[in-house]
This record gives sequence, C-alpha cells and structure tokens, in this order.
Amino acid sequence: MSKNVVIVGSVAYDDVETPLGSRKNLLGGSATYFSVSASRFTHARLVGVVGNDFSEDDRALLARHEIDVSGLVTDTSGDTFRWGGRYHENMNDRTTLYTHLNVFERFTPKIPETYRHEEFLFLGNIDPALQLDVLDQVAGPRFVALDTMNFWIEGPRREFLDKVLTRVDGLIVNDEEAKLLTEGRSTLELGRRLQELGPKTVIVKRGEHGALLFHGEELFYVPAYPIEQVIDPTGAGDTFAGGFMGYVARHGNLELDTMKGAMLCGSVMASFCVEGFGLDKMSAVTIDDIKNRYTRFEALTKCPALTL
Amino acid sequence: MSKNVVIVGSVAYDDVETPLGSRKNLLGGSATYFSVSASRFTHARLVGVVGNDFSEDDRALLARHEIDVSGLVTDTSGDTFRWGGRYHENMNDRTTLYTHLNVFERFTPKIPETYRHEEFLFLGNIDPALQLDVLDQVAGPRFVALDTMNFWIEGPRREFLDKVLTRVDGLIVNDEEAKLLTEGRSTLELGRRLQELGPKTVIVKRGEHGALLFHGEELFYVPAYPIEQVIDPTGAGDTFAGGFMGYVARHGNLELDTMKGAMLCGSVMASFCVEGFGLDKMSAVTIDDIKNRYTRFEALTKCPALTL
Repeated sequence: MSKNVVIVGSVAYDDVETPLGSRKNLLGGSATYFSVSASRFTHARLVGVVGNDFSEDDRALLARHEIDVSGLVTDTSGDTFRWGGRYHENMNDRTTLYTHLNVFERFTPKIPETYRHEEFLFLGNIDPALQLDVLDQVAGPRFVALDTMNFWIEGPRREFLDKVLTRVDGLIVNDEEAKLLTEGRSTLELGRRLQELGPKTVIVKRGEHGALLFHGEELFYVPAYPIEQVIDPTGAGDTFAGGFMGYVARHGNLELDTMKGAMLCGSVMASFCVEGFGLDKMSAVTIDDIKNRYTRFEALTKCPALTL
Repeated sequence: MSKNVVIVGSVAYDDVETPLGSRKNLLGGSATYFSVSASRFTHARLVGVVGNDFSEDDRALLARHEIDVSGLVTDTSGDTFRWGGRYHENMNDRTTLYTHLNVFERFTPKIPETYRHEEFLFLGNIDPALQLDVLDQVAGPRFVALDTMNFWIEGPRREFLDKVLTRVDGLIVNDEEAKLLTEGRSTLELGRRLQELGPKTVIVKRGEHGALLFHGEELFYVPAYPIEQVIDPTGAGDTFAGGFMGYVARHGNLELDTMKGAMLCGSVMASFCVEGFGLDKMSAVTIDDIKNRYTRFEALTKCPALTL
C-alpha cells in the first residue's frame, strides 16, 4: 500500500553558471528537488523554511506536484536561503560563489503533528544535531534514510553524525563522502564498514559511474543513465534520493526488489534533472518517460545467457 | 564454430611491490596475460619475443594452457623484457621502478604462416608502426582489436596510431586513454567520437567502476566484479582483453549478445587476475569458477520488473 514520504531539508533560490549558460533565482534546495522527484511516485510532505521573498509561483509549483507544505514554515524575518555556484568545463567540479543562509540559519525543524506517524522519512543534509532532533519528534518510522556532507563528516559535529547514523536505516552518500566516513580497500569492505556505522542499507553515488546499493548482505549496481548532455547538475543527488525514497514508500516494503527498482527510479529521475536548469526538465516528467528510461536501463545491463 | 585468437604483444618478467607484499621474476607481459586468459575459452596463438633467460618452467606453463608458441621467438642476444613496479596504498596508482626492454627493444613481430588466416587478432600495446606492420602480414581477419597507451597517444607516433585505428574493428582502452584520444562532454559523445576514429566496437575500461561497450549503435555496461581484496593489479587490462577476445573467437560471431557475454567474461577473468600475484590465481581458474562469477554478475545488475 502506498505510503507518504517526509523530507526535512532546505528550500533555496539558486544562481547557477555553467559552460552552457547561466540562470538566476532557480527554485532549489535539497527538500525541493527531493519532493518534486518523490512526487512522481507518492505524496511528499515537506519540512523546511522559506523567507519573505518566497514567490507565489514557487508555492504553486509545489502545489501542482501535490507536495504537502504544512511543514514549510515562512520566516518573515528574512530572505530564503540563497546559493550561487559555477560549474567547470567537466560539469563535475564546481565553485560555490556564495552561500547566504538567511532564514535557514535559524532553521529548527518542527515536524507537524500530521506527519509524525509517517513510515518513510528522509533527513536531508543539515546539521546532524538537527537530524537527531527530528528523530526525537517522530514515532518510530519504518525506514529513515539520511544524507550528509564533508562539512559534517570532517568537522566538529562528527559526534552528532555518528550518533544519528546509529539511529537510521539508510545512508545515501557520494563516493567521496563514503571514503571520508570510513575506509575500505575494496568496494565490498567500504560497504561493510559503512553498514557498521549503523545503517543496514547504504547507497554510494558515483556520478557518471552510477550507484551502488548495499542492502543487508546484498549488493546491486546501477550505471549512470547515458544522456547526451548535462545542462545543470544541481540537485541531482537529492533528486536521486527523492526517486529512491518515493519508490520505496509507494511500495511500502523493504524487499530487495523494491530497493533495486528504487535505485533505478532514482537514477532515472536524476538523469532528467541534469538535462535542464533547476527543475525545468524534471518537473515535466511523466510516468511514461520514467518507464521508457527504466526499460533502457534493463537493456544496458541485461546479461545474455552464458554459453560455454 | 570455435576460432583461434592471435595475440601480438610482450612477454616479460615482472618485479612487483604492493602494500600487501612483493614478488620477483613473475611471468608477465601483455601477450602472456592475454593468452592465459583467452585459453579458458579458445586456443591462443602467441607472437612475441623472449631472451636467453626465459625459463623452461614458464614455457611449460604456456604449454599447459595449450597456447601455441610457434610465434614466440627466442632472441639469444639478450634477456627477456623486465619491468619493475610499485603499487601505492590505493592499488590504483603505481610507480614504474624500471623498464629494461632488453630483446623487446628489437622486436619486429613476424606472423607465422600458420597464423595468417586466423579471423581473430589482438594487437597488444606496442609501437603503432609495428601494429600496422602486423596488419600487412595477415589475410583480412574478421575482427581485429587493439590496445594502446598514453605514450603512443601523446607522443610523436600518433600519426601511426591514427592510421592503425582506421584499420581495426575494436579498441580496448582505459578511461584515461579514451579521454586522451578524443573529447566528449558525455559518455555517449565520447564513445561516438572514439568510433569516428575507426573502430566500430569500443571498450572503455574504468577500473573499479567497470567497463563500457559501444558496439555500433548499441551500448552495454558491466560493473567491476566485487572482490574482497586486490593483491596485484598487474595484467588486469590484458586479462580482460584476453577473456573478451577469447569468448568472441570461441563463438566466432560479432552478435551483440556475444559481445556482451565477452565483456562479462573479460571482467570475470580480470577479477581472478587481481586476486593473486602474477598468474597465480588466474592460471588455476576453471570453467565452473567462471560460470559462478558470471551468475553473480547477473544478480548484481538484473533489474526487477517496474511496478508503477
């Protein structure tokens, strides 16, 4: 039975420069990308904060995706979180031009009463002390996954991160973050060590090299969906997480096949995300678009029978 | 119908140091790794040169794998090619400690009369002018693939490399070499541009991230086989190529499913190769070992049915 998914994270305005062009005031933030992506699979319920300047058009966009925003607080004391970044020629490296936290600096997530019994929860990349606080507000969800970043892994908040890791079921990080969190001479060892930190389901995103799932004793690979041209990589990771969690919540179980399908749907959504600036491409994706790319994924990796 | 495969390349003695230990006088070289790997699938016929010091034990090893060595010349004027290398902690980067070309410096491959009508040929990483010379000695093989390296791509011999590329069917390179050969903003563009250089079948090896096959208009991904611990990465690329070409030659056709199966068998053989020093592990691999890892590969990437 389809379940909702709750996301706690940032809502932002982004200014993005890439070798292919630049755009200002793009609706962004981890919770935005996550919930728009998840909305293709189930209902997303968003917990975040915006400022004075948050536009009616952007509220309308969230509403069109049937995203529940009763957890989205408007803090009239300032502006919405604003981020500016420039992507380099290879589209992998980027320079942050500015980070104005604005009202996000005082963000203390408050989970609405109506969300507290939801079974699927995603803790976006925020201060791990706040992630812990969120866990104290909810009633034993079935599957909690979290994202984090180098700033929390290497910084003085690591002890909070270690604590929250022991209380979650899933971890979604990129290759670099995985290697900062722990060490492993092989992929298998890396996965096992990440699981030893707490979460029994670990996803390592490897950009153009795809993603890896460790689910209990099981392992699954998904390549990056091959696209002609990356327009704007912003939000791809959160979009992956949204597709993944949305698919899992829709199916309402933690079976291996559900997790595998979720990996593929996360990758499919991320492939759409990077094909346009901001939410341009992703927000127009249909179920048929998803099915087509899923089918292509099957062809990309399906092993023929071995004849020896 | 099973066909033989001809390999032209180096036979060497390697001294290898890794974080896990070191070994001296290991039988190595591209033609050795290639032919031992290919021998699991078909008969390999080797063209190369060794010196005075080449041991009877090593001849016996080649014989045990039913490798035809009528193209292996013994040049009594000197020693066998000798290479020494040290792998760093991550097992990816290595430092060459010395390269003594010895008799390999004067290597001018001569294809035995009995090999000239073989349909499957692999040009190991040697001077592209020699690769061209080999092509002039054979009678229109059905499928020729080549390996090359940064030294030939960036150096003054590039014009010969460009020429040989227009005369081969397949190219097997690593990610770095692919990017030196041409440019592409996306994986798809990179593959297309490599194909424009000549070969319609292009394999890009990505180490721990697996490998990609471009075969005409088709694309196929294979992840790296997950192993517990890399002992010695020497020869993994040639072992991949040997498994690939051996499987293709065994099937004697260029169908997409043959190419896909060959990618998997190449990866399986490479996974065995790196689990031991030199040929230690690989030379003892059985057909059942290969079948087991092939089956595990299927499970690693098999997409479940999409339920939306």
